This record gives sequence, C-alpha cells and structure tokens, in this order.
Amino acid sequence: MASSILIKNVLLWGKERDIRIEGNRIVEISEPSSGDARSVEAEFVIDGRKKAAIPSLFNAHTHAAMTLFRGYADDLPLHEWLSEKIWPIEARLTEEDVYWGTRLACLEMTKTGTTFFNDMYWHWHGTARAVLESGLRAAISAVFVDFGDPTATEEQKRRNEQLFSAAREFAKRSDGRIIFALGPHAIYTVSEEALCWTRDFAEKNDLLVHIHLAETQAEVEECVKKHGKRPVEFLASLDFLNERVIAAHCVHLSRKEMEILRENDVKIVHNPASNMKLASGVMPYEEMKRAGLRKNILLGTDGCASNNNLDMFEEMKFASLLQKAHTGDPTAMPAHEAFEMATLNAARAFRVDAGEIAEGKLADLLLIDLNNESFVPTHNIISNIVFAANGNCVDTVICNGEILMQNRHVKGEEEVRERARAVVAKLFESDERGESEGVRKRESERVRG
Amino acid sequence: MASSILIKNVLLWGKERDIRIEGNRIVEISEPSSGDARSVEAEFVIDGRKKAAIPSLFNAHTHAAMTLFRGYADDLPLHEWLSEKIWPIEARLTEEDVYWGTRLACLEMTKTGTTFFNDMYWHWHGTARAVLESGLRAAISAVFVDFGDPTATEEQKRRNEQLFSAAREFAKRSDGRIIFALGPHAIYTVSEEALCWTRDFAEKNDLLVHIHLAETQAEVEECVKKHGKRPVEFLASLDFLNERVIAAHCVHLSRKEMEILRENDVKIVHNPASNMKLASGVMPYEEMKRAGLRKNILLGTDGCASNNNLDMFEEMKFASLLQKAHTGDPTAMPAHEAFEMATLNAARAFRVDAGEIAEGKLADLLLIDLNNESFVPTHNIISNIVFAANGNCVDTVICNGEILMQNRHVKGEEEVRERARAVVAKLFESDERGESEGVRKRESERVRG
Repeated sequence: MASSILIKNVLLWGKERDIRIEGNRIVEISEPSSGDARSVEAEFVIDGRKKAAIPSLFNAHTHAAMTLFRGYADDLPLHEWLSEKIWPIEARLTEEDVYWGTRLACLEMTKTGTTFFNDMYWHWHGTARAVLESGLRAAISAVFVDFGDPTATEEQKRRNEQLFSAAREFAKRSDGRIIFALGPHAIYTVSEEALCWTRDFAEKNDLLVHIHLAETQAEVEECVKKHGKRPVEFLASLDFLNERVIAAHCVHLSRKEMEILRENDVKIVHNPASNMKLASGVMPYEEMKRAGLRKNILLGTDGCASNNNLDMFEEMKFASLLQKAHTGDPTAMPAHEAFEMATLNAARAFRVDAGEIAEGKLADLLLIDLNNESFVPTHNIISNIVFAANGNCVDTVICNGEILMQNRHVKGEEEVRERARAVVAKLFESDERGESEGVRKRESERVRG
Repeated sequence: MASSILIKNVLLWGKERDIRIEGNRIVEISEPSSGDARSVEAEFVIDGRKKAAIPSLFNAHTHAAMTLFRGYADDLPLHEWLSEKIWPIEARLTEEDVYWGTRLACLEMTKTGTTFFNDMYWHWHGTARAVLESGLRAAISAVFVDFGDPTATEEQKRRNEQLFSAAREFAKRSDGRIIFALGPHAIYTVSEEALCWTRDFAEKNDLLVHIHLAETQAEVEECVKKHGKRPVEFLASLDFLNERVIAAHCVHLSRKEMEILRENDVKIVHNPASNMKLASGVMPYEEMKRAGLRKNILLGTDGCASNNNLDMFEEMKFASLLQKAHTGDPTAMPAHEAFEMATLNAARAFRVDAGEIAEGKLADLLLIDLNNESFVPTHNIISNIVFAANGNCVDTVICNGEILMQNRHVKGEEEVRERARAVVAKLFESDERGESEGVRKRESERVRG
C-alpha cells in the first residue's frame, strides 16, 4: 500500500489513456503524456499498450473452498449429490482445509479477473485468512443453520457475535477488504427465531445478510405448505427484507414477490451455470427487469461443486445466452447488462466504491490482453468481454491499489496448487479415494470404449 | 512430416505413459521407459510431466472466416442481424479476406485444442489455403444456394464440380487433411432440383454433404406449408438422407423425424451456444438419445457471429448444462457424452481415423496443462475437461503428426492477428466503420452511465 502505479497508454472504452493510482485509489485519468517525465513519479509503471483497462469483476455468490470438490460429484440427482457426496465430505473439513481451498479459489478468481467475492462457508477464519493473504476483497459469512433446534440457534448466535468481533481485526489488517456478513443459509434450514435474530443483529450493526432464496421449486412448495406463503412473502412477513439483504438464486418468483423485492431494494444474485447444472430452473430476468429490479441483480458462480469454475467472464455469457434461450428473444439481456451485473450493480450492493474506472474510485481494475483471440477483431469490446472471452484474457489484476497479477503470474501460485492438492489427497485418502479413482477408471473406459 | 515425436511421462486416462508418434500415426503407447535411451530415437522429445494427453477436438459445424465479424452485431433480432448486418458485409468479402479470417479461426481453434472443423462458407479457395497452411484438418464446403433460380442452379453445379477437381490437389498437398464436401445451405435456400443433384454427385463421388436443417420453428412451418411435410420428412422423400449427410442444428424434430434420421444413419451437429444466442430453440438431445441417435450427435460452435468464439471446451459445457436445464434433470447429458460428441462421434462421422489416443490411430492429440486451475484438483478428468476448463488449458497441439502449438505458442500467430485486423479495418472502413464506432461509444456510455 501507499505505492503509486502509472498505467501508460492503455485503452479505456476505446480511448488511449494514462491511469494513475496512489495508495488504493485511482487519482488521475488523462490523455497519454508525450514524454516519459511522469513515469519517474510512479513506483510501478505498467506499459498499457495492446491492453484495455476494465473494472474488475464481482462474484456475488460462492462457496470458495468448494474448489476442493471440483469434479468430485457431477451429473447426479440433487439429493444424492448433496446427501451422499457433498455433506459427508464437508463434515470432514478442517479450518486449514478451508484455508487452502479458499486460497485456491482466490488464485483462480485472480487469474480470471475477479477481485471481490461474496462467500458463505464453514470455518470462517480459514476463509478470512485466505482473503487477507490473497489481496482480494470479500464479504464473508459463516453458514448459519439451526434446523429449528433451539440449542443450535443459541450456539449460532454466540458464534456469529464472536465472529463479528473477530472480523474487526481482519477488516483493519486488510484495509477494509474483508467485510463480515451474516449468512442465514435458507428458510428451510434456519428457524424463524434465528431469522429474526439475524435481522435485528444486522440492523443494529449495519451488516449485509447473505441467504439462499427460492432456489428450487421444492423450496417454494414446502414454504407454501408450512407457512401458507411463498418464500419472499414469508421473509417479508418477518420484516426481514431490506437493501442489505443479498438473496442468492431467486429462480422461482411470483410477480408479487418481484414487487416485494423491489420495494425493499433487496439484492438478487443470479447463478446461471449452477442453476442449469443442478436443473433448478431459470431466473426470470426479463420479468424482473420489467418489475424494476434491473440494477438490483448481481451475478455469481456459486461453488465449484456446481459450476465447476469461478470464471465470471464465462458466467456473463451463460447469463445472457440463458435468457435469450429461455425467452426465445435474442435481444434479451444484452451484453452490457450482463457486464453491469458483474460490476456496477454489485459494487453498489456490497458498498464497495469500485465497479467502474473513474478518478476517486478504488483501484480495482483489470488489464485485458487485446492479443487474446477473443479480442481480434474488436468491433465492440463489451460484446467481446461477454460473448467471446473467458478469464484467460486477463493479463493484469489490481485490487485496492496492489498489483496481484501481472503477465498472468500470481506470486506464490505454485505453492497454492500444491497445498490444495495435498489437502484433497488427505481428505479423500480413505474409502472415498478408492471410489474417486473407480469413477475415473469407469469414465476412461467409457470414453475409450 | 515423417518426423518422430516421443511424449514422455504423460498422463493418459490416469496412467503415466510414453506416446511415440512416427509420421502421422501413433505407433506405440507404453509404460515410461526407465532411462532416456529411447529419447534419442525421436526427433522431438516432449516432457509430458504435469500434463494429460487427450484426443484433439472436432468442431463439426462452423463458418470459420466469420471470426472477422466477432462482436460486430449482437443482441439483435434474427432477421435484422442477418439482413441488415451479416449479409451486406459478407457481400463485400474477397477470397483474401476469407483466407485471413480463416487463418484467424485456425489460430483460435489451435489455441483451444480443435484440430478438425467442418466448414461452409464463401470463397472456398480462401478457406482451403488457410487450412493447408495452418496444419489443421477440415471438411470444406462452398455455400450452395440457388433460391430456386435455374440459372443459379446450373452455375452452382458447375462451380462445385470445379471445386471438387481443385480439391484433389489440396487433398494431396495437405496429406489428406483437406476434405471436399458439398454444402447445400438449407432446404429454404436450395431448390429441389439442386438438392437432388447434390445427392447424386455426393453418391457418385462418396462425398460428405453439409446442410443446415430444422434450425428454427419458422423453417419447419414454411416447409410444412410448402411441401406438406416437416424438413426431415421432406429430405427423406427426396431420398437425400444417408450416412454421409451432416445436418447442422436439428433443433425442431418430431419423433418420426428422429426415427428417419436414425434409419438413415444421418449425422447431427448440435450447436448449443449459437442456438441459445439466436434463440432458435433447444435440440431435444435426451429424446434423440432414446431414439438411438446418441453416437450420431456431434458438436459445433457455428460461426463467430453467433457464438462468439470457436472454443469447443466451452461448447461441451454449454451442451451439457443446456440439456440439464432444458429437461430439469441434472443427470442429462453427462460429461463423457459431451466429450464423445466432440471426439469419437465426430471422428466416425467425418471418417477421420482419430478421436481417441490409441496405437495405429492418427496423431491428433492435445497435452493439457494440469497446473491450469481447472484441473486442480483432478477428481475426474472428464468432468474437469467438460465443466471446469476452457480452451486455455491446452499446452500442446499435435495434428497429423505435426506439432502445431507448444507452450501455447503457434508459429506466425502475431502476423495472423495483424493481418486479420487489417482485413477488418478495410472491410468496415466506410460508413460501416463509423457506425461500429458509434455502437462502441454508446455501449461505453451506457456502462459508465
């Protein structure tokens, strides 16, 4: 920190510019200087030629450490996937495992141009330590579940109060990059009592609240049966909804629920690849847009077990193409709307003063390699970003004024991959490992067969 | 050619192997040699450690030179897109433009692990020259359209006869990498007379026939109105269908049409990203599979104007996730089926003795970089290939025994990008160019807005 960076002769929305960063802010955007007199004033000078500067991306819903389960259990029915594969292996995770899984996720996000993620997972400290060291920003919530058990409710309240305290130190040490959030998992795993406590604790401390909402038709049906209301109506009846609530998925919404979400300025995270892979349904984006929710909709990858990567470039393409296919209208969710979901809309939702490249904003930005074939030719750079590119077009990543990647190299990346592989080998070393190899062998036989 | 390559210590479906290539064939796959005595026997020795060998991919339907229009006209209604954007600019193309557009496509396909493509486009010689020089394989057809005009029909027949003759020389010079195919565009652009001529000329000369079929609902309705039959039924009534027909899209099929396709062993190319982007509908893969068509289904990107890239890794993910979303069944089109569409099924369809890595097969293969985050960890390599990776995981590409890419570098790639950019600048330099810049400016304003 407190360093200065000068990016020279970079394309910013089609115009050649010099971008100057002091500390963690963009302080000046100007026409390129004629000489190189100015470059001596900056500690780091980056040659921006054949590169385009764009804001870095926000992954608004994920479970970062699930990188450890990438490809572990695919093509399965939802219930079997969760109860026979994901939950048993999650029960074995230690804080150290989550730390290395999240480091791997941070490495992957850095490599693919994401500098902020909104996380909900086990072992909060493991995640927070990984974010601290990776240089990224994150809103981190613990998984708050009580399944209606009052003892568990009390335990979770105390745990979240403790984490909230501990988080102050992490916020300080990370220059504000780490944000504590509450993470009531979902209406079917958290009691009414706990939801109300979450609402009040969040109100009192001005916290974001991260929840899964209306992800599957089964969730809606169960809620109607139990409460006589649909999920969003149920949360509204608890006075739970407001502008600090980040609701992931929202696949199954009535028109009335869209109205409620808009009235309360709730933020909604669309996860197209996960929804497609788990066959959860299609979020009705165009209807939600008509209901006035456009700027409330963010974009996320979900965890690696249901995607199976954290590439927000790919996610923008999935989002736009899914809406075109779903509505039968090729003009649905144009490229720039998908891009705004991953940048400006998210910056507002998470109260991060970034999401665009402008003087005074936080220095969270990417340099795109215009020699990447996805940018040849460049008729329209937003189209290329959303429809042609993937995260490998990113050459340089700057977050909070720090250079996290340059020329696609991230400091310490080899160690992160090695340690993550070691964690996986240990986690799956018993019977599970044999099974995993068995699957691989069967796959290989099928392919060769 | 006639070179020898030894790939040492590479992972082949989970087992460490040495792979020996002589000329254009894989001659030996063995357990790693203990010493390095064997390496002196090969002209090129490749260190395969931390890499996996997989067959290279087949792009079964594209219009390669449309890379020139990547991002030129997106998010538009189909008719406006075609008639106001694509057709006017295509009318200006020269053979040299198509040559450089196809060189760019070949570069992009090489970089993303595709070594075969099935093309239909204008200026056949431009495409063929580009394939010859790029080192890839391709089946190349000219766009055969007559719009029912008998003069055009005769002209097209003569033209295709000439191309068929000229193609012999290209086949020879490319060691069989270039295959001439017939390309009757579609039933709504080609007369019955011309379809029948195509059928007979293909039969006589044992040629592949590449056609767009049942892509949109409008095509089906028009066909029923005109012929009293659905598209596949109509072609069957002309005795047009057989095992050499490669039918792109087949989005709208009745059960009876699936039966007809199966009885005639017709090959079908699924283009999920294009179908989604243009909102054409969803190919009913699972139904087609139940109708016995599974091994007849191939995978393609379509042209860059409707995708907007040529990355077959991405296409496999779109294919599988689209079926899961469409059917509501997360077990639909598992990863290995998507992979077979892009490899074995296509090799059979195009009569290329590759699509798998085995002794005696053509040396068309990839080395995947297992340090790419998409392969960390590797619980199941096929899952990682289909769901996590994109084409940037490819480190080395070998086609017909020639090393086309190593360490992600392709010989002459800088020139290809520069020349393609110059072609685009020239094509769009008049009024169109101003418009293109206008769009970019508006986009940028919207994004910053």
